[in-house]
Amino acid sequence: MIVGRALQIFAVPGIPEIVEGADLAAIFADALAAARMATEAGDVFVVAQKVVSKAEGAVVRLADVTPSDRAAAWANTHGKDAATVEIVLRESTRIVRMERGVIISETRHGFVCANAGVDSSNVPPGRVTLLPRDPDASASRLRDAMMSRLGHAAAVIVADTFGRPWREGVVNVAIGIAGLQPLDDWRGRSDRFGRRMHSTIVAVADEIASAAELVMGKTMGTPLAVVRGAAQWTGNGSAATLVRPATMDMFR
Amino acid sequence: MIVGRALQIFAVPGIPEIVEGADLAAIFADALAAARMATEAGDVFVVAQKVVSKAEGAVVRLADVTPSDRAAAWANTHGKDAATVEIVLRESTRIVRMERGVIISETRHGFVCANAGVDSSNVPPGRVTLLPRDPDASASRLRDAMMSRLGHAAAVIVADTFGRPWREGVVNVAIGIAGLQPLDDWRGRSDRFGRRMHSTIVAVADEIASAAELVMGKTMGTPLAVVRGAAQWTGNGSAATLVRPATMDMFR
Repeated sequence: MIVGRALQIFAVPGIPEIVEGADLAAIFADALAAARMATEAGDVFVVAQKVVSKAEGAVVRLADVTPSDRAAAWANTHGKDAATVEIVLRESTRIVRMERGVIISETRHGFVCANAGVDSSNVPPGRVTLLPRDPDASASRLRDAMMSRLGHAAAVIVADTFGRPWREGVVNVAIGIAGLQPLDDWRGRSDRFGRRMHSTIVAVADEIASAAELVMGKTMGTPLAVVRGAAQWTGNGSAATLVRPATMDMFR
Repeated sequence: MIVGRALQIFAVPGIPEIVEGADLAAIFADALAAARMATEAGDVFVVAQKVVSKAEGAVVRLADVTPSDRAAAWANTHGKDAATVEIVLRESTRIVRMERGVIISETRHGFVCANAGVDSSNVPPGRVTLLPRDPDASASRLRDAMMSRLGHAAAVIVADTFGRPWREGVVNVAIGIAGLQPLDDWRGRSDRFGRRMHSTIVAVADEIASAAELVMGKTMGTPLAVVRGAAQWTGNGSAATLVRPATMDMFR
């Protein structure tokens, strides 16, 4: 078979429940070894935000939170848990919408998403996870540790599923990046008619995160995927680059 | 190697420039055969909107268009081509933003995107492509013809790159679908702690489109990718399902 460009994406099986303080790189390397999955330079590891938050202890016990009057009132009106609402408000720097029982807000990272990324799914009862405080740093630490264990270059994306305006359903996006350029800028390259392209910048890190989600799923206990064939985008990068500055955002 | 879920994505090389009236299924089947790429039941073919529009003749010669006063004035102010602006306005059912030289609008399909999907890249000079009139029907016709030629079941996604609010860069999304369920609804399934998931509906068709974009690129003349490993989502579906009704969209 003669192929052009190709991509392979593998879910890594056998990763146990992650608890605070867990050494993700050690656990991931062990799971790769147990599954006899060889990795190679240029592989991109896509890691679910949930396990990064758990390992880093970005988990809050609802019983430890005293809701503000605002959180309690809104939670009561909408049949939500007041402590969870309180945590969402604390994690938000700006409320985009707060109605119909849903809070869309901006996080301190600049991400706009539901509930500021606060999530109770796949978390022990009575607890919620927060987004990692600095997901790029989380990705960078994990990358260094994975490279050390595996003995080759690699990139890491910390990913979470975000809703989007205008379109149904969530898609996985990159919230932390290490060793990867998040954007591929086609501006200045020529199209097939020799004309210079303009205004085409592709968010490849988000596309890689979305691709990985297809093998990770939501309840399958597979928080790690290996994406092979994306080595052309390895390099220095930050997920902060994916956050559109408010002044440049025509949708706000 | 023991693997969990896996996905493979191949670009199909050797597809010539597509002109009006082209038989895409014949061209794609010939390219697959020439590259000795075997396909199989459950494969998802992701096709760039651009070639579908070209084959269907959804191409407009700028010289044939008389700009309205509104289009001419706005084009003049922002240094844009008046005929192109006129076509964008005609393709729009609602203007979301029209400033800084950029038009974000809603198309008759309900998609919200830049320039109503009107595009000049990879199109012969003096012409622009429109979005297919009915991308689901385009996908369905192509699927039927591909299945007939290849002798096995398959799904088709017609895809285009759209910008997003809040995040930099475009990502590939599904604008036409045949033989695929666009959304995977995890609501009601249990998480690993036995709790029922809620409000998690994943836009798998968009994630598949994004995954395919990574091997298709923008100037490489590869408007077709094969995605293998997504057969679990085959079934009946429409890209219209991915359009969030205005009444349900908290971002509008």
